[in-house]
Amino acid sequence: MTSPSLDFASDNASGVSDVVMRALLEANAGYAPAYGADPFTQESQARLSALFERECAVFLVATGTASNALALAALCPPWGAVFAHEDAHVMGDECGAPEFFTGGAKLVGLAGEAGRIAPESLREALARFPRGLVKQAQPAALSLSQATECGTLYGLDEIRALSAIAREAGLRVHMDGARFSNAVATLGCAPADLTWRAGVDVLSLGASKNGTWACEAVVFFDPALAADMAFRRKRGGHTLSKGRFLAAQMNAWLAEDHWLALARHANAQARALAEGLARIEGVRIAFAVEANEVFAVLPARVDAALKAQGARYYDWPSRRLPAGFAAGPQARFVRLVASFTHKPEDVARFLEIAEKAL
Amino acid sequence: MTSPSLDFASDNASGVSDVVMRALLEANAGYAPAYGADPFTQESQARLSALFERECAVFLVATGTASNALALAALCPPWGAVFAHEDAHVMGDECGAPEFFTGGAKLVGLAGEAGRIAPESLREALARFPRGLVKQAQPAALSLSQATECGTLYGLDEIRALSAIAREAGLRVHMDGARFSNAVATLGCAPADLTWRAGVDVLSLGASKNGTWACEAVVFFDPALAADMAFRRKRGGHTLSKGRFLAAQMNAWLAEDHWLALARHANAQARALAEGLARIEGVRIAFAVEANEVFAVLPARVDAALKAQGARYYDWPSRRLPAGFAAGPQARFVRLVASFTHKPEDVARFLEIAEKAL
Amino acid sequence: MTSPSLDFASDNASGVSDVVMRALLEANAGYAPAYGADPFTQESQARLSALFERECAVFLVATGTASNALALAALCPPWGAVFAHEDAHVMGDECGAPEFFTGGAKLVGLAGEAGRIAPESLREALARFPRGLVKQAQPAALSLSQATECGTLYGLDEIRALSAIAREAGLRVHMDGARFSNAVATLGCAPADLTWRAGVDVLSLGASKNGTWACEAVVFFDPALAADMAFRRKRGGHTLSKGRFLAAQMNAWLAEDHWLALARHANAQARALAEGLARIEGVRIAFAVEANEVFAVLPARVDAALKAQGARYYDWPSRRLPAGFAAGPQARFVRLVASFTHKPEDVARFLEIAEKAL
Amino acid sequence: MTSPSLDFASDNASGVSDVVMRALLEANAGYAPAYGADPFTQESQARLSALFERECAVFLVATGTASNALALAALCPPWGAVFAHEDAHVMGDECGAPEFFTGGAKLVGLAGEAGRIAPESLREALARFPRGLVKQAQPAALSLSQATECGTLYGLDEIRALSAIAREAGLRVHMDGARFSNAVATLGCAPADLTWRAGVDVLSLGASKNGTWACEAVVFFDPALAADMAFRRKRGGHTLSKGRFLAAQMNAWLAEDHWLALARHANAQARALAEGLARIEGVRIAFAVEANEVFAVLPARVDAALKAQGARYYDWPSRRLPAGFAAGPQARFVRLVASFTHKPEDVARFLEIAEKAL
Repeated sequence: MTSPSLDFASDNASGVSDVVMRALLEANAGYAPAYGADPFTQESQARLSALFERECAVFLVATGTASNALALAALCPPWGAVFAHEDAHVMGDECGAPEFFTGGAKLVGLAGEAGRIAPESLREALARFPRGLVKQAQPAALSLSQATECGTLYGLDEIRALSAIAREAGLRVHMDGARFSNAVATLGCAPADLTWRAGVDVLSLGASKNGTWACEAVVFFDPALAADMAFRRKRGGHTLSKGRFLAAQMNAWLAEDHWLALARHANAQARALAEGLARIEGVRIAFAVEANEVFAVLPARVDAALKAQGARYYDWPSRRLPAGFAAGPQARFVRLVASFTHKPEDVARFLEIAEKAL
Repeated sequence: MTSPSLDFASDNASGVSDVVMRALLEANAGYAPAYGADPFTQESQARLSALFERECAVFLVATGTASNALALAALCPPWGAVFAHEDAHVMGDECGAPEFFTGGAKLVGLAGEAGRIAPESLREALARFPRGLVKQAQPAALSLSQATECGTLYGLDEIRALSAIAREAGLRVHMDGARFSNAVATLGCAPADLTWRAGVDVLSLGASKNGTWACEAVVFFDPALAADMAFRRKRGGHTLSKGRFLAAQMNAWLAEDHWLALARHANAQARALAEGLARIEGVRIAFAVEANEVFAVLPARVDAALKAQGARYYDWPSRRLPAGFAAGPQARFVRLVASFTHKPEDVARFLEIAEKAL
Repeated sequence: MTSPSLDFASDNASGVSDVVMRALLEANAGYAPAYGADPFTQESQARLSALFERECAVFLVATGTASNALALAALCPPWGAVFAHEDAHVMGDECGAPEFFTGGAKLVGLAGEAGRIAPESLREALARFPRGLVKQAQPAALSLSQATECGTLYGLDEIRALSAIAREAGLRVHMDGARFSNAVATLGCAPADLTWRAGVDVLSLGASKNGTWACEAVVFFDPALAADMAFRRKRGGHTLSKGRFLAAQMNAWLAEDHWLALARHANAQARALAEGLARIEGVRIAFAVEANEVFAVLPARVDAALKAQGARYYDWPSRRLPAGFAAGPQARFVRLVASFTHKPEDVARFLEIAEKAL
Repeated sequence: MTSPSLDFASDNASGVSDVVMRALLEANAGYAPAYGADPFTQESQARLSALFERECAVFLVATGTASNALALAALCPPWGAVFAHEDAHVMGDECGAPEFFTGGAKLVGLAGEAGRIAPESLREALARFPRGLVKQAQPAALSLSQATECGTLYGLDEIRALSAIAREAGLRVHMDGARFSNAVATLGCAPADLTWRAGVDVLSLGASKNGTWACEAVVFFDPALAADMAFRRKRGGHTLSKGRFLAAQMNAWLAEDHWLALARHANAQARALAEGLARIEGVRIAFAVEANEVFAVLPARVDAALKAQGARYYDWPSRRLPAGFAAGPQARFVRLVASFTHKPEDVARFLEIAEKAL
């Protein structure tokens, strides 16, 4: 195993928080009805409804891919089209799960800087998919990633603007919130403001990347949209028999704003990493660090020195670099992800190696 | 919540064993690569290959439904037919997951006493599905449940006989082993004898009902059959990001025959329950208790007394009663499931209430 | 090619009527908008609405399998169950088309004599599929074949009774009318009485077996159910570019009760065949001949003599014989289908050979 | 109905050639086995194998959408990716039929001028889909349209070059030949040269747009690839019961190079149309006219005059205009399609109106 303190490969590389682990230990006592008919699951529904200031229909699952794909399937028929940023997770990182769960819908990639869909890109795409034109996929849903795949955030106004365009065209709005907690931690706004009050119909709320083992919630702000979800989830093999396992994680994660504390910590480590790297000659930060991810171009010597010391992180496709940036043999484009487990000394050590490499 | 000690509703009503919980605590330390590229997952593959005395291709998932449906999808094309006992879990308890994952295959229910497919039933069904007849589904797989939905077991000879019929007709053989550990505990034979040496191609090995939170393994005895499984699992949303979570459960479960110890314990409680009930006037045990389930007809007064004391168990459809049995207002057909958590005093208390009811 | 006059293999073995062929010749003149936006298609919609005394939503396709599968997909979600007679065409003669078009629904076979679903069989099946029980397919549609696969008919009362059971359970009712015209010809009732007035929601009306090349209509008596059909049909590849080709057939077939004349003729030949055969020693007619099919047990010598003279017809599975009948080496169970092209002298010749064989 | 002689809306707006109609009349005599077991179908297979100088596996269907979707499903698993020009018919004109028949594959649109995929665009796309990367769709097939959606053609060298790139990356090559006959008529090369000798595995050969009612052939140059096609076609509802109807069209179309004569005629009318239009002030021809389609920018007055006289043709999306062209209120971008039914006087009349408009 690599040296732990230099592992910035993924927020999935961490385990669970002590709080969550303790909750699992406690939930382990005794018997509970299976398949979600347990009091833990009821509690999770109440907690999420309270958090979002609205009666929500909540479905817990174990993976983000399931959460996204099931949510989109609830919004989009087999002949529908889902519009998402061209680099969104649903577009290219789920091996076609949205296509599978929707029964063959079309995912339409939209351009936009820094992982954010540009409104004109959405408008232009919608113009290409006139409603009722039988030979084409029918526009059904917009999927926004918050935080984005570039570690950036949509502002409230941006979400509202995109949602308005979508809703005017008769689309439903989905939010891929795999890193929703990181977004809330940064923006400091109410979860309701970031979602249904801004036009979002369904949120795929992720906890797995931020403190739990495997726990995601599909949150329907309009329960009517969830009419078929119990069947979809069961049929997809995503209804865990020991439902309390999922719910116990979610409940501990939500209690006393634990989720926000974890996210704030991760975000802070990412910012520290970015600030430190930015001071190193030749390093360029590609996107604003608004959540827990840092995308940077590193001089090859820096990259080599870090890897030689056991640092872990992913090389990133250079086609995703913003205009004005370049990568190549002498300049590596990389992604660093901080999680709730990273300590300031991990960041410091990482920066120290980078600085000395030049 | 109901009184714990009288909860025989489901083996899914229990939590996890202390051993498994401890393993999760230990696995929580440090960082590990995501999506199954971690050392825990490697270890689980090695452990399962060792257990089955053969190099296996192993895919861990979180639910039995996913495990069954993914396994069947690997064996059966969209235009294929899967033959299973008419009461099998894949037939009517998974909301069509096998149909979903195969892309619309046909599941053909076969008759047979006590949950076991009768060889003549299989032969007759195969005769109805001639290979190459384009208008019909093509025979593709036989699925055997071990233990069965009646809590009974196939003997080695029975598995061999059914497999031989299936293989001669060009079918692959799947085993739904949601309670495989209970079967091995009773039969005392090598797992390899019960599976590939008896003609089984793929085993859906369940751990969730017997000591873990959520852990199932699809075990391919011929790795060539698993060529597409990584894509199928990912696309189904069943590739957990924190793969070590699944693998740590499996490893602890397998180590030092913990799985067998848990199963033996559960089976013993079921047997004690059945033996005690059989001594009560008017109670009839519907099927031989060969695993951890007891199917019984209880006099209404016994049933009422138990429920009044908070006992939990399911009423079972009377159409599943064997010939010569009857249920109705005065005789309730019920299912009782024992798990690794039940203690002899739980059983004793249950029997005490039942005895006093008359 | 076999001697034409003895070909009773299938009503699909005939070509098209002269009237239909003439209509195609006429429709061939000039240009017409593609994909169903042509005046022929409009006319077909008007003609069918008039025939059924109600505004219908009509979708023409080229095959009965497409017609059935698309209709069922409009009525049944992927997690739904369709109830049909166990020998129905949708159950075992369409290579899983209903499963494909619905996205993996479950088809549940019901028993019943002479191809007709027994009401108690439907009731019993519905009891096994409680609405809202998430682990099971949800009851969605009843599919009735009129005429049945045994060449028999449901009476008006029988359709009403089955529909009533279905509707009370929240199911929609589909009618596979591949031989609907033969049914109407025999029953002499209004098409509306046989369908929506008796509780049928969607009819798959077949013309291909009775005088056209390739023409079937999915007729929705409640147009609201057809909201998505244009997309389903297009996506299934069933929207013919030269829509007038389908519509011209349908229009000619419907005009001046041509469809009924063709069906009456076919039915009469079938009855003559059955009556003649019934007089031959050792021949037994298995089902009442109410449409254009004769199911008979022929002495082996009769069978051999007919085949030696080039007669064509299918051996039929003996499991489909009614109680009290038997087939084997000395008694062949066969199906004979008469079509609009058969002449009385064809029947006479067939009977002559049969009679002389003894 | 619009004045026939000015209807350039679509080659689907024409009926069938006299030769084809005569063949249908002749094929109508007598009885023939159903579902493609007839001598007409056998003949069509032999004719196509002869035409392509190779034993082919041939499957006739009634629509181009079915032909494309079934062919792609044979080449691409549900988790596969199909690469096609971004304006290809399979991308946006079939309401997701390829997604439906493949079980949810991803269609990746590639850029390229005048409807032709640019080799660098294919290379770049393949680089984005590394084989074996589980989170992404797996590269499976390249689909080339010949003629293209811009009425242009790939030269032999271009097909060879694209096929070579595709095959090197492990992809199979499909050709959408809805207007294959128009391409052969122009290029004058052997059909084998344009297809399998240039690396094409499967051809969707269209006859419907060029002289038949509804007839398309999926031609597998490697019959092994067609192993499952009989099931896929049946299950898709695309196996016509009266198979001779499809085959009789195909046989007449192929006999004595009727198909080529029809295509040459259509192409000549398109060229004449383009040449005449090009002489009119303000008219610009957008793409080389290499098949039977003309894409032109017409001054608004010309457009209005034509439509006032009943001319029919489609406005085309201006985003498909090549660089250097513009459309708007004063300059309409339109598509004109010539077919085998257009006469020189139709073209002359069309041009006359256009010329006088200025």
